[in-house]
Amino acid sequence: MVPDEPQLLSQLASRRSFIAKAGMLSLAIPGVGGALVACADKPGPEGGDDSQRGQSRAADNMHGQNADSRLDTALPRDARSSGTGAAAAVAFHRYSPELPPLPAGGRLRLNWRARETNIRISESTTVAAWTFEDELPGPIVHCRVGDTVEFTLTNDVDVPHSMDFHAAQIDPKIAFRSVTKGQSVTYTFRPRFAGAFMYHCGSAPVLMHIGAGMHGAIIVQPREGLPAAREYVLVQQEFYLKDEAGGVRSFDFQKMLVGLPDFVTFNGRPNQYVDAPLRAKVGERVRFWVVNAGPTHACNFHVVGEQFDTMYLGAPPGTPIRGVQTFAVAPGGGMCFELLCDVAGEFPIVNHGFGHGQKGGIGFLVVEP
Amino acid sequence: MVPDEPQLLSQLASRRSFIAKAGMLSLAIPGVGGALVACADKPGPEGGDDSQRGQSRAADNMHGQNADSRLDTALPRDARSSGTGAAAAVAFHRYSPELPPLPAGGRLRLNWRARETNIRISESTTVAAWTFEDELPGPIVHCRVGDTVEFTLTNDVDVPHSMDFHAAQIDPKIAFRSVTKGQSVTYTFRPRFAGAFMYHCGSAPVLMHIGAGMHGAIIVQPREGLPAAREYVLVQQEFYLKDEAGGVRSFDFQKMLVGLPDFVTFNGRPNQYVDAPLRAKVGERVRFWVVNAGPTHACNFHVVGEQFDTMYLGAPPGTPIRGVQTFAVAPGGGMCFELLCDVAGEFPIVNHGFGHGQKGGIGFLVVEP
Amino acid sequence: MVPDEPQLLSQLASRRSFIAKAGMLSLAIPGVGGALVACADKPGPEGGDDSQRGQSRAADNMHGQNADSRLDTALPRDARSSGTGAAAAVAFHRYSPELPPLPAGGRLRLNWRARETNIRISESTTVAAWTFEDELPGPIVHCRVGDTVEFTLTNDVDVPHSMDFHAAQIDPKIAFRSVTKGQSVTYTFRPRFAGAFMYHCGSAPVLMHIGAGMHGAIIVQPREGLPAAREYVLVQQEFYLKDEAGGVRSFDFQKMLVGLPDFVTFNGRPNQYVDAPLRAKVGERVRFWVVNAGPTHACNFHVVGEQFDTMYLGAPPGTPIRGVQTFAVAPGGGMCFELLCDVAGEFPIVNHGFGHGQKGGIGFLVVEP
Repeated sequence: MVPDEPQLLSQLASRRSFIAKAGMLSLAIPGVGGALVACADKPGPEGGDDSQRGQSRAADNMHGQNADSRLDTALPRDARSSGTGAAAAVAFHRYSPELPPLPAGGRLRLNWRARETNIRISESTTVAAWTFEDELPGPIVHCRVGDTVEFTLTNDVDVPHSMDFHAAQIDPKIAFRSVTKGQSVTYTFRPRFAGAFMYHCGSAPVLMHIGAGMHGAIIVQPREGLPAAREYVLVQQEFYLKDEAGGVRSFDFQKMLVGLPDFVTFNGRPNQYVDAPLRAKVGERVRFWVVNAGPTHACNFHVVGEQFDTMYLGAPPGTPIRGVQTFAVAPGGGMCFELLCDVAGEFPIVNHGFGHGQKGGIGFLVVEP
Repeated sequence: MVPDEPQLLSQLASRRSFIAKAGMLSLAIPGVGGALVACADKPGPEGGDDSQRGQSRAADNMHGQNADSRLDTALPRDARSSGTGAAAAVAFHRYSPELPPLPAGGRLRLNWRARETNIRISESTTVAAWTFEDELPGPIVHCRVGDTVEFTLTNDVDVPHSMDFHAAQIDPKIAFRSVTKGQSVTYTFRPRFAGAFMYHCGSAPVLMHIGAGMHGAIIVQPREGLPAAREYVLVQQEFYLKDEAGGVRSFDFQKMLVGLPDFVTFNGRPNQYVDAPLRAKVGERVRFWVVNAGPTHACNFHVVGEQFDTMYLGAPPGTPIRGVQTFAVAPGGGMCFELLCDVAGEFPIVNHGFGHGQKGGIGFLVVEP
Repeated sequence: MVPDEPQLLSQLASRRSFIAKAGMLSLAIPGVGGALVACADKPGPEGGDDSQRGQSRAADNMHGQNADSRLDTALPRDARSSGTGAAAAVAFHRYSPELPPLPAGGRLRLNWRARETNIRISESTTVAAWTFEDELPGPIVHCRVGDTVEFTLTNDVDVPHSMDFHAAQIDPKIAFRSVTKGQSVTYTFRPRFAGAFMYHCGSAPVLMHIGAGMHGAIIVQPREGLPAAREYVLVQQEFYLKDEAGGVRSFDFQKMLVGLPDFVTFNGRPNQYVDAPLRAKVGERVRFWVVNAGPTHACNFHVVGEQFDTMYLGAPPGTPIRGVQTFAVAPGGGMCFELLCDVAGEFPIVNHGFGHGQKGGIGFLVVEP
């Protein structure tokens, strides 16, 4: 063989290892081991915690409840490694998906920093992210068509960074220019169309800058407003990571080019809304503003047990599409999905392209009576 | 290199072998071998039958007919292996794509079994499928908006299974719960929107349950009806298979996560509608209800030599789109495509994303005068 | 390991090498090396030219201009190899994206040749393409709904070829039949729907014939016309290439089936519209007719710093969608995107699925005051 392929092969190796661990999830279901072990050929010996979880799941099954979906993931759920040193001190926090209130006076002043930030995305994984405002994805911006957004980015780090708002119509050569450490760039824009727009660092290589965490959502409401709803923002991101070093995994440009992600997440943490779901009440309308940061794959957005009575390919409230089960949001794109909560229950929110979605792209909407 | 990567590498190896065989298809075209052999570097010695087929294709070319497309596949068409033992006894049957009639009285009672069933998907391949009603995809369900669907699933096998109808608005925690061997789950729903909806087993890991065959289509007609048409149902599925053992190939979860399918099919058999095409008559409207079971890739639906005068992204008859050549149906999604047969001929039905479509996603619509 | 996987592994190896070179682009940015080198682990020693470019980019950064995006590519930009012998004599030429004028008298007579043509797609790469009219993509065809297109294809080469116009409604078995060397096929059609339609060779294996270059765009205007605009045609194509031999790289069917492209281009040359951009003036409307030849991946079309005020999923001017940032054009499909140039500037045109787009799918629209 060609001698020096350590990168790709170690990717394949770690993939294999994580699949083996995923397989462990199923092993403890009584009478099922033989069949489901088909999912993973050589489960490793490291799945102590996993097997306990597997048993609790099996127990759920015994009671006739579909608790499966709460644990439905190809990812290991263990607490083995929580990093060492400084990384170990980073606590996990849930990314809040709630749409923040509109700014007063039709004017937003944003003064953001580009930084490098260790972020714990799960019990076992801390990533060395490139961030806006130390968060991944960056903060949710909320405004209306025609509002004034005054934006300043100051770069605190050695890598040049920039900011590209998809909601802005502006000369990118000037406004979206890269700034080096200590420099700032300022520009002002007034969004012309409503919708769920992506923002991201546009510095080269843009694949790396988006992939390493410098992206987020700006939600633009139409001036005429939309029907009252509980509004959530979900940003899908793929993670392509190097092996852990010093308790932290950095992002792997090479794996980004190959396109086999380690995780696919909503709002930057695999399966975070399984344990801490989104919530609504019967009779409410829920509006999902979905941005797909990519960098590469589609987000095939679906809510199990529900249907979108309305979705918008472009600016709401224009050209509503009715009765949609699943629709693909393109990488670099955003769409608006609405459903009416007419029954109580627990509804999984998924990327229905499960080859990717199974890697963390699952959460829950709990509708209470 | 990292030592134990047998799975992935054997996948690559078998891929290589099938490509080599595909290359054989072209070798017998007089005067073409040198050029087309570029498609496959080392055709193996096993292509005896293939080369005969290649010759017949070459002969067709000599007569100026485009018989090429009838044999256009990256898959070997051989009769080498038809399995052994019990598997050898499984006969191939075409999956009927015709939309069944509507139920009388606006009420459907479905009493289905979850099973494990060997299904011959081609002359050379029998798969160990996870099935609803021993079929892959499962039976086509047909009803109208507001009809009552009473559904019961009984599990006959050791792996827990469940049923998720995308046409239902219902609490998944209760209705879509997993049941173990011998148990049943029953629920009732009334579809609110028209369209081509997917159903599938939702038990964890859902990627495996969908990928191994537990999916199908429920077609919901609008109450106001649609223009008279000949109606067909096509469910796209990717196949990720282990090597043959005991005459049967089982499904490979690891390959599902990597996303390089062995086959991409309409209604569960590669190229089945090449030899036994869909049919219509000049002057008729044909309506394709297309569901993409995935589990991962888009279905870029196209009919060669035709154009869709109408397609629906959501519930027909709302927001028709006119004049479409190709549109991507998301995995987990469904769409409705219509064309008017104004000329007679043989029209290939394809997934125009040919890196995948070439692996079995080709059939024919024959329009007779 | 399985012994003979030279093809795949050499693909991985060459991928690694090109990524290493891409990483070189970033190395000369003062104070940045340590951070950005994370993008490529072992930059090779061959990047002499690259590092000079890196320096000029760093210099640009120092002046606060976002020159980054002009050099944003995962591809090496070197002049090392320009082929040898006959291949060395092939000059690079830009593919003109301008929409040609409509034919007089509502009638087009096209008499095309299928050939094999060496085409230089960049300073360093000449490909052995399969072509229509010695061009890749083939010539842009422009007509109106109801015009008469009389088409003849004559095959000058040993491989059988054919022509499939997505704008035609016609029996493919007759019209799109393959012809062998010296033979011709003639047919006439009158497009029924407006739009950006693909044409391509449909001979088996169609993946190879499309992938090797036999495709292009036919743009059909609605009879009622569309708003005045500057009109451009962009055809996205993935390139899957073998290693250079005799100064030329031929197309690799095996890599097409795996789906990891070497290049992703607009109009057949990576990044060609970076140096020689598309142009418009403030106040003008720009209409992009985008065809995705594939063969496999979506084209997630986006213009940085702009928004599409109008796009059409089907035949314009029907069902316009307003306010779109990014939309996926399916492989085998085409769509029409419009924007209004209300500000001057330099606007990158990208495939926002950057895992692919970073491989050459970047150009510029320069809007002059």
